[in-house]
Amino acid sequence: MSVDELVEGVLAGKRRSLARLLSLIEDEDVRAPKALSQLYRHTGRAHIVGVTGPPGSGKSTLVTQITKELRRRKKTVGIICVDPSSPFSGGALLGDRIRMQEHALDDDVYVRSMGTRGHLGGLARSTAEAVRAVDAFGKDVILVETVGAGQSEVEIIELAHTVVVTDVPGSGDDIQAIKAGIMEIADIFVVNKSDLEGAERKGAEINAMLETDIREKPWRPPVLLTNARTGEGVAELVDKISEHISCLRDSGLLEERGLQRSRDELEQMMEYKLTHQLLTELRGRPEYNEAIVRIAKRNEDPYTVAEKLVMDFLLKYREDAG
Amino acid sequence: MSVDELVEGVLAGKRRSLARLLSLIEDEDVRAPKALSQLYRHTGRAHIVGVTGPPGSGKSTLVTQITKELRRRKKTVGIICVDPSSPFSGGALLGDRIRMQEHALDDDVYVRSMGTRGHLGGLARSTAEAVRAVDAFGKDVILVETVGAGQSEVEIIELAHTVVVTDVPGSGDDIQAIKAGIMEIADIFVVNKSDLEGAERKGAEINAMLETDIREKPWRPPVLLTNARTGEGVAELVDKISEHISCLRDSGLLEERGLQRSRDELEQMMEYKLTHQLLTELRGRPEYNEAIVRIAKRNEDPYTVAEKLVMDFLLKYREDAG
Repeated sequence: MSVDELVEGVLAGKRRSLARLLSLIEDEDVRAPKALSQLYRHTGRAHIVGVTGPPGSGKSTLVTQITKELRRRKKTVGIICVDPSSPFSGGALLGDRIRMQEHALDDDVYVRSMGTRGHLGGLARSTAEAVRAVDAFGKDVILVETVGAGQSEVEIIELAHTVVVTDVPGSGDDIQAIKAGIMEIADIFVVNKSDLEGAERKGAEINAMLETDIREKPWRPPVLLTNARTGEGVAELVDKISEHISCLRDSGLLEERGLQRSRDELEQMMEYKLTHQLLTELRGRPEYNEAIVRIAKRNEDPYTVAEKLVMDFLLKYREDAG
Repeated sequence: MSVDELVEGVLAGKRRSLARLLSLIEDEDVRAPKALSQLYRHTGRAHIVGVTGPPGSGKSTLVTQITKELRRRKKTVGIICVDPSSPFSGGALLGDRIRMQEHALDDDVYVRSMGTRGHLGGLARSTAEAVRAVDAFGKDVILVETVGAGQSEVEIIELAHTVVVTDVPGSGDDIQAIKAGIMEIADIFVVNKSDLEGAERKGAEINAMLETDIREKPWRPPVLLTNARTGEGVAELVDKISEHISCLRDSGLLEERGLQRSRDELEQMMEYKLTHQLLTELRGRPEYNEAIVRIAKRNEDPYTVAEKLVMDFLLKYREDAG
């Protein structure tokens, strides 16, 4: 399939073309950025909602319930599950298949898992590109679900307009998990498994923590109780998700963040291209590998070597012209 | 304090000089790389041990106990606590002060917390630099403790020779936290709070999971039970930590990983320098900000713009010579 066919297929709403593009993105195939470059002007229409929280907090079930509620409201839905799973777990594919079955009969839902094939930076980039592809495909809402609750998820979830952070009733320890990083980026808190003891207390704890933040803000994150198994509280959650994007739009924050995001993306792409070019030139050269051996033996220091190699790289362009 | 004074002070074992250098590292002050460049040839001697695991698994208490045991064995110790805390928690400093008191009378223990002041990539870099500084300072063992158990900690902990992953008895859910990423990098598993019910079972679960990995390896991660409160099992843990570095040394893996690490560090430094130079040239130019607005409005796509700006940057060097 050529890049042009791929682009046409995605814009025509062909699921097979989208699936193919997502695979190219995951494989870091050179055709992916070419297709995305053409698709770019068709993006920016979807409401991107991130769902994150510690393992066992029922994110997957909640995402399924949110999807059902959105479908009731006639919205089309894309789901991207980000699973930085190790070769040990292989969870991504299994989860994918289960979910696929759940929405198999609904053409207005598209589900895809993204796993780590390379380093984490790669996962954040490929997730952003997958979201862009699904956006161009025309889905109204894109749910990005991340496994885990570390800082890495923070980087991935930054692409969302609205971030839902889930937690469950339990020991006070896991409040620390919320504290470390995600507190800052949560737009809506959900205490899931509301039938378990301590759900109300957990909600109150999160609220108490939120009250320590006295900054002026157009949006104060609400704390909701849900039971993803029964669907209780999910309609209210979807209401809040819609309210949040309206609030962003009305306050001008949506535009402001869009600009910031475009800047970040552009700079990441430039960084990637520039270092790719540098490393392509260096790797494989014997003197490069010799320099690394000298650094490892502490005969040279990496600061000085890095300075020299970067200057040589930039000046090479000058010499080429001479 | 000049860079030369700083370097001399660190090499002479002056705690004040080390503290000053660590602050410069955290502030990303230009003097930090200059000092580290000079200190580099004095590094590579410490055994770097990472301790990571989910919140509430007793990492801090365990690190204190490991330190006590190492002191009994006449080893000097550096402790770097990495806390990607938000402005909400401010935990880093408090924890720092408590720990400082604990080891206040022992000149052979140096404790320091590193928090996020910028983005996470920055934290991984500044932690690596802090470890390098403490290494040059002459500590025998450097314990790097990270809060949380996400993929981000994986990036930080990669600098360790030996990685200890802690967990506690509890629900089967948190086994997922281990699965997602840290399984791969653990050299030693510790089930802490061994007095709690289910400790043996948790140990057996981890062992069962480890047995699914049938690859040939010089080292098979042991699973130990400890009680950091009482110190039970800590001597065995410290034995295993020593055994692990011996195994790395004997198998040639230590040298191999050292080379890989030098390569990674050199490439990260080059990336940083190169993109820093590019962005310094671009930012502030009106046409750069205009391009970002066009991208945000979907009038241009970031792939094409990134390509053009990078080529312009590289060719500028050619023109300068022409």
